[in-house]
Amino acid sequence: MSNHPFSNFPEIILASKSPRRQELLKLMDIKFRVILKEVDESYPETLQPEEIAVYIAEKKAHAFDEAVTNEIVLTADTIVCIDNKILGKPESASMAVEMLQLLSGRMHRVITGVSLLYQQKLHSFFDVSEVYFNQLSHDDIIYYVNKYQPFDKAGSYGIQEFIGLVGIEKIVGSYTNVVGLPTEKLYKVLKNLL
Amino acid sequence: MSNHPFSNFPEIILASKSPRRQELLKLMDIKFRVILKEVDESYPETLQPEEIAVYIAEKKAHAFDEAVTNEIVLTADTIVCIDNKILGKPESASMAVEMLQLLSGRMHRVITGVSLLYQQKLHSFFDVSEVYFNQLSHDDIIYYVNKYQPFDKAGSYGIQEFIGLVGIEKIVGSYTNVVGLPTEKLYKVLKNLL
Repeated sequence: MSNHPFSNFPEIILASKSPRRQELLKLMDIKFRVILKEVDESYPETLQPEEIAVYIAEKKAHAFDEAVTNEIVLTADTIVCIDNKILGKPESASMAVEMLQLLSGRMHRVITGVSLLYQQKLHSFFDVSEVYFNQLSHDDIIYYVNKYQPFDKAGSYGIQEFIGLVGIEKIVGSYTNVVGLPTEKLYKVLKNLL
Repeated sequence: MSNHPFSNFPEIILASKSPRRQELLKLMDIKFRVILKEVDESYPETLQPEEIAVYIAEKKAHAFDEAVTNEIVLTADTIVCIDNKILGKPESASMAVEMLQLLSGRMHRVITGVSLLYQQKLHSFFDVSEVYFNQLSHDDIIYYVNKYQPFDKAGSYGIQEFIGLVGIEKIVGSYTNVVGLPTEKLYKVLKNLL
């Protein structure tokens, strides 16, 4: 009666080094192991934001084409998008400050593309959330960037960190999608896989 | 330059035993200690949902009227509301299952009232978020209630637990407000206190 719905599921391989994705998958009570492969994350300039996230997630999955048999490989890519401009990971503190100034007082979109590779077939989807920042003070931005060093985060912020807690007025959409893995959609797609 | 904006703030007393509220306050990098007082959480039947949350938060704060001098006392109360009906904490597994069946496939509202007692004055506010559950399967509800025993949670769920991750399609509003403390509004009000 109270078995996890996935207790008889094939093994899941999470191909992501993001501790936030690992944590979300754990909170879904899904067992998995992590295997990482180096993937070039470039993409054609002509793609729309939603297509970019899925394109990169699929690239990450294709790295496993030869390597898996009965497991499900799960990959994801999260991008931050404002005025149809993609914000990547900041390369310096001053780039991080600049990005947060750009997000301040405005709405931006967070898109996560997800790819599941299972029995040589790819199952891909994405989710979009709107995030509304209030007017961030310069002091709060400087404090955040210095203390949290958000260099591994697209858009220079983590929603579950200081600047997310004090700066985000509201979101419209999935919260976990903003964190890095749209868990509600993922659960549906996984259920339909079998 | 990178001092926390509240580094010279009066001491904060959090009057809540909720580990989730304690965690959120920590993530805001705010120092505090926890002091608990027993408070009767009844309220007049005539109040609207927003008024109930603030009424109970203020009751919790009034318990400190005589006890504090220079500290800020922070109290909060979170209620779940569907069709203008208030869902409290479930008293049994079957009540929890029933509540989740009621929330399934629908939108409900989560309201947190917050009260700050400082220098004999109360500063109170509330925040409202809309939460949209997908159609929850009976198996998932049973699994969740048996494993997570959500008896300390208004509405019988934690948004950061299994059923929240796989069941919530979207939210409109503040995520931390649903967890139990509207951090963005709280930060603004705290800043304006001084």
